[in-house]
Formats: sequence, C-alpha cells, structure tokens
Amino acid sequence: MTQRLTDVLEEIGRQAAGASRELAQATTAQKNEALLAIARRIQQETPAILAANEADVRAGAESGLNSAMLDRARLDSKRIQSIANSVRDVVQLPDPIGSVIAEWTRPNGLRISKKRVPIGVIGIIYESRPNVTTDAASLCLKTGNAVILRGGSEAIRSNTVLAEAVSHGCSETGLPETSVQIVPSTDRAAVTLMAQLDRYIHLIIPRGGRALIEAVTASARMPVIKHYDGICALYVDPAADLQMAEQIVVNAKCQRPSACNSIETMLVHESVAHQFLPQCAAALWERGVEIRGDSMTQQILGSRVVPATEQDWRTEYLDLILAVRMVRSLDEAIDHIDAHGSHHSDAIVTEDSAAAQKFLNGVDSAAVFWNASPRFNDGGEFGFGAEIGISTDRLHARGPMGLEELTSYKYLVEGDGQVRE
Amino acid sequence: MTQRLTDVLEEIGRQAAGASRELAQATTAQKNEALLAIARRIQQETPAILAANEADVRAGAESGLNSAMLDRARLDSKRIQSIANSVRDVVQLPDPIGSVIAEWTRPNGLRISKKRVPIGVIGIIYESRPNVTTDAASLCLKTGNAVILRGGSEAIRSNTVLAEAVSHGCSETGLPETSVQIVPSTDRAAVTLMAQLDRYIHLIIPRGGRALIEAVTASARMPVIKHYDGICALYVDPAADLQMAEQIVVNAKCQRPSACNSIETMLVHESVAHQFLPQCAAALWERGVEIRGDSMTQQILGSRVVPATEQDWRTEYLDLILAVRMVRSLDEAIDHIDAHGSHHSDAIVTEDSAAAQKFLNGVDSAAVFWNASPRFNDGGEFGFGAEIGISTDRLHARGPMGLEELTSYKYLVEGDGQVRE
Repeated sequence: MTQRLTDVLEEIGRQAAGASRELAQATTAQKNEALLAIARRIQQETPAILAANEADVRAGAESGLNSAMLDRARLDSKRIQSIANSVRDVVQLPDPIGSVIAEWTRPNGLRISKKRVPIGVIGIIYESRPNVTTDAASLCLKTGNAVILRGGSEAIRSNTVLAEAVSHGCSETGLPETSVQIVPSTDRAAVTLMAQLDRYIHLIIPRGGRALIEAVTASARMPVIKHYDGICALYVDPAADLQMAEQIVVNAKCQRPSACNSIETMLVHESVAHQFLPQCAAALWERGVEIRGDSMTQQILGSRVVPATEQDWRTEYLDLILAVRMVRSLDEAIDHIDAHGSHHSDAIVTEDSAAAQKFLNGVDSAAVFWNASPRFNDGGEFGFGAEIGISTDRLHARGPMGLEELTSYKYLVEGDGQVRE
Repeated sequence: MTQRLTDVLEEIGRQAAGASRELAQATTAQKNEALLAIARRIQQETPAILAANEADVRAGAESGLNSAMLDRARLDSKRIQSIANSVRDVVQLPDPIGSVIAEWTRPNGLRISKKRVPIGVIGIIYESRPNVTTDAASLCLKTGNAVILRGGSEAIRSNTVLAEAVSHGCSETGLPETSVQIVPSTDRAAVTLMAQLDRYIHLIIPRGGRALIEAVTASARMPVIKHYDGICALYVDPAADLQMAEQIVVNAKCQRPSACNSIETMLVHESVAHQFLPQCAAALWERGVEIRGDSMTQQILGSRVVPATEQDWRTEYLDLILAVRMVRSLDEAIDHIDAHGSHHSDAIVTEDSAAAQKFLNGVDSAAVFWNASPRFNDGGEFGFGAEIGISTDRLHARGPMGLEELTSYKYLVEGDGQVRE
C-alpha cells in the first residue's frame, strides 16, 4: 500500500513538473481563458458536486465528525455559485508573471533585469473546506504554478469533483490537464510522502490547524510557508482618542472573533485606565465578551472580570474573550507583545505620533497598526485582490500572501560578448 | 553530553534572540561603527589568530586532512589583512534596513507601507574557510540580524578567535556582544540541534558540500537557503558570432573551473558544428581542457575526444573538463538544460534576438545569459557589493544573495480610526 502510494505521488509529482514547464510559458490571456472555463465547469457540474458533497457529509456524520466540521465541509448550490464567482474574480487580477522587478546596467555594459516567474510546483495541504480546492488552484494557475492538492478526508469526494472541473477547464483551453492534481488518498502517510517530494514540489503551504502545520514542517524537505495563530494585541496609549480606542477594540474583538487578526489582548496604559476601562468594558460586555483581567483591571471593573492567568496572555481564544492588562509605559506594552504575542497583527491607538512611531518600529509583527483595527491585516483589505493566507513566517512572504507572493524571479543578463577578467 | 549540548544551544539561541531585538533598532551609523571596530580588532588580534590557526592546521594534519582542506583552513597575515578589509568594505554598502519597498493608500484612507526589516536570527553552517566567520557575520550585522555560526572542526580555533574579535568589536561600540556567537562544539549533533532550534533561528544557510546541505535540509524545521551545485551550459546557436562564442566558452570553462557558475556542458547547433568546433576545441585543448563529446563531436574532432556517457551531462566537474553535445534545434538545447542542468547559470550565444528571447524565457535558471559569460552570476558582478552565496532555491532568494536577500519586511498601517465592516 505505502509503496503504491509512493508510486502514485511520484507520478503526480512528475506530471506536475511537466505541467509547470508549460504553465510558465502560458500567456495571461490563456490563463484567464482557463479560469473562465473552470468557473463554467463548476457551475455545469453543480449536480455532481452536490451529490459528492452529500456523500462526504453523510460519511462524516457516520464517522462522528462534529457539527462545526460538517458545516465547514457542506456545500449548497449558493456556495457553489460563490466558488465559481471567486474563480472569475481571479481573472480580473493583474498577472504578476513576466513583470520586471528591477533592471540596471553594469559599468561593463551588461544589462541585467530581474523578472517575475512562477515558483514551479506548489503543494497545498488543507482541511475541511472544499472551496480551498478551487481558491488555491485558481491563484496558483493565474501565477503559472502547477499545484498538488491534498484535502481532508471529510471532503475528499467534493474536492475530487471540484478538482476534475478545474482540470477539464484547463484541458479544454489548451493548458495541461495536470496543472491541478489532487492526491487520491486520505491516508496520513500521503502528507509525509508529499513533504519528501522536494524533487518536484518547490513550496508547501499547509492550511489548517497547528497540528497539521507542525506535522508538515517536521517532515518537509522543501520550504513551508506557515499560517500560524494570531495572538494579537491592541495598546491604548495615554494620548489615545478614547472613543476611537473603544470603537477599534470592539471591532477588533467582536466583528469576527474566529479570525486570526482579531485581538485577544488589550493593553491599557494605567494613566487612562480609570477613564477608559468602565465604558469600554460596558461596550464589550454588551456584545457578550468575557473580560479576563489582571489585578488592576479587576479593581477597576469589579467582580464581573475573570482573573487572568499567565496562560491568558498566550492564548488565541478565537472567541468572545478578551484578556486585559495594565501597563506602566509604552516600552512595557512593546515588551509584553514581544514576549507573548505571535508577531501577527498588533495595534496602538494614540494621537502622539512619536509614541506611534516607536510602537510601529518596535513591535516585530507582520503588520502593525496605528489608529486602525488589526482586522485589516488581510490580502483583500490590503488591495491584493485575493490571498492564499496570512503568513506568520519571515522568509519569502510575511503577512497577507497575494499573487506576487506566489512568484519567484530570475535574472536575464544581456551582453555583447563580455567575459570575466 | 548531548543534554549539555542541548542546553548550550538553547542558551545561544536565547541570547541571539535578545541581541536581534536590539540589532533591529540599531542605526546604520551604529552598525558601521561596529564593523570598523571589528576590522580593527581583527588586525590587532593577528598574532592570536595566527597562533590559533597554526594549532588548527597542525591538528588537521595530524588527523589526516588532505592538503586541499588544510590549504582552505590556513591563514597568513596577508589573508588576515584581507579579512579585515572585507569587513571594512561592508561599511560602504547601503543599509537596506528601514527602506520602504512600497507604499500606497487604500480607498478607506488607510496608508500602508511595506518596510524592510531584519530577518532576525540567522544560522550559518560552514566548512573549512575561516573567512566565512567574518564575511557572514559582517553581512548579517549590516542587515541587523543576529547570527549563530557553526564552522568545521578543521578551523574551530581560528573561527573562535575571529568570532571573539567580532563580539568585542560589537560590544565596544554598544551593540550586543551576542550579536555574533559561535557554537563551541565540533560534535555533529550540534548541526542537528541547531536545525531544530526554530524557536530562535529564522533561517539557516549551509555553506559547504552537498552532504552538509542535505543533512541540514533533512533535519531543519526552519527555512534553509541552499547553495547547490552549478551544472551550467552554454548553447552555440546557428546565428552565433562564432568568435564571440569561442571567447565566452573559454572564459566560462577556464577562468575559474572550480566556481559554481563555470560551465560543464557546451551545446552546439549541428549546422555550425563543423565550422565552430575544431577551432574552439583547439583553444580549449591549448588550455588543458579535456573534451568529452557525443558521437558527432567525436566524428568532427577525432580521437582526442573522450566519449561522453549519460553521466557526463549531469556532472559538476569543477575542473578543466567540458562535455560537448550537438543539438538539432534551440528547443533541444532548452530541453537538454531543463533535464540535465541544475537551474543555476546558463547562456546562449547568438545574434538572433528572437532565439535569444526564447532561450532567456524558456530556460528555468536563476540567471540566464545572452552573449555573456555565465561566470557573471555573482553578487559582486551584479553590483550587490557582496554576497553570502548563490541560492539554488526559488523561495525568498534566487541567484546571488546580497544584503537585500538577508532582509524580511513588515507592513506599517496608519489610519484615523478605521474599523472593518
């Protein structure tokens, strides 16, 4: 079985490498035509997708999946329409491939240009949501990358039918059918085998929980771009516009608590705590937020505050819970974030631009916000048009990953016979 | 022992993380002052460095190292002067940290800027040459990165004294002494332990042979930027200026055969083979090059040609040997390079710009040359001022790695109270 799986993955890798060579030469028009064909195919195949999804959900329920997982895996015709529309949206995005990042001429007359090219073959390992199949495939296709998808067992049938629609959309417009392939196995060994296929796969992006990301990182021989937790904080400075601070805190906590760029911690300078906390807490409690506070927060807000433990400063609740801590200085706020945060998205609210600059430069996070909600750390909100995730890594891509982050580059050097002395 | 080593590495990692936070805030002036102090220290410590090196070379000779390895490890006062000068050269390079890569304003008024920041902590694992200690340290320091060095046993004493000079240069100018640390163990387990320290180390760069790079890649949990072999080819097109082709071939093979960007293979279009090969071969033979050819090359050049085997198309000789093959078309040349090369540095010689463009776009290598020697694939020759190596990876850095490739970035977002709808 494992030998067979090894052979299957070897063949998938070989096919992907071949497809990536063709995709690298495809024009923007060809890629856009394929994306439109894919969107059409997805709509045409709606009955088959629904039937496969029905079987997935039934199998999931039988094997005891919880309702949240079943809900993530479930499709209806409206969701399928929205999946097709997302593919069409990618047509509108500018194609980064072939653009010149920089060009210059050397004193010896050599003309050097640095040009964007596809990465090559990208592996995506994900859980639950079948829309990742088409979202990831369309972003990879637009950037000329071949992609190998490995979804979770709870959506294997849906993913397979969706991936077939993508392959057919490619082949009917002259791009390789193997531009997008799905690993036909829910065996966990397939993940490890994929992670070893560095002969063919240039990058793996795991999209899922911490356990999945860690398993991939531990076994991968190629680069892995990780999308870990967001333990994000907002700091209320003494010079803050307190009404603005309250609005941003409420937004950053309540607008979508399950998002990685929502805040888990609020740090308040003690000089404004008495003035700020009661009204802010009332607004949060009104929205059902549980406040876990340090001793001074408890003193100011009373017994409705749950006493915070050390663990609270390091927890991504993804829920209507906010840890609140008083600090005596901006430095203490920065130190807290450095020690307990996950370097994802952090914010300061202040009218003092010197304090803001110190925070922006001193907090080592992918995105740092001044007088704005950290919920804006998002490819769409940054204007990238789409995103494949928010990288918590520091190499190649940090923060929102749009199309440019799915590219590599090469140098083209033109001379007139120059040789090296 | 291994537990002790684990503790030692944990402590080194912790110190490096602390140092990197300070280094990230250091000004260009501070970093340059430290580099000048380091260069002074290296010169002052010349007697101690020579004594340590003497002991390294003696120990190496006793343990049976070959003369090439001993030569790479050996220092004299002239080499030490040149090491100090290389550190001073880094002072002159522009500091990429803090520069704005891009900035834009969103329709909702958010002002976003993408700013260069240090990567954080970089691990360098290397062999033999003690100058890597100071070269790597000075490039990392200039870019605000803390660095953990792990050199080979054949130069451990030299590396230690050099690293001390670097640390003292840092501390006397107010930068953390632990900005640069050396792993005080030649135990192979130290490499594996370093590769697991992803809590602290953001990037590992192995500088050495294939076995070292593979060992690091297999165990590393953080990104690794690899500098693998260069199996580079030059293609002589029917429309080539044959005299130019000969000059470039001679340069690309003979000027420094041990360099990764020297060519190992020459592909010649069969329509110009009779005209081109005899004279080019004479020039190569005159310089002591062994030619290994396919059957047509043997026919044209006679019995002095060594018959090439399949293995020759995949071998990095690093020596005065050139594999020569006839091709019937540009496509065949591109296919050969794709199948047998290492995607490093490849060249075409032609006066036909359509053929050149096809080659430049079709060959998937870090740098592709038109009418120029691939020996120019080098940070210095590209104008980067210095390089830490030539990456054969496609993520984060491809081709020559200069100072910019030792940086990451972060997004600074300024608003006026914006919240997400």
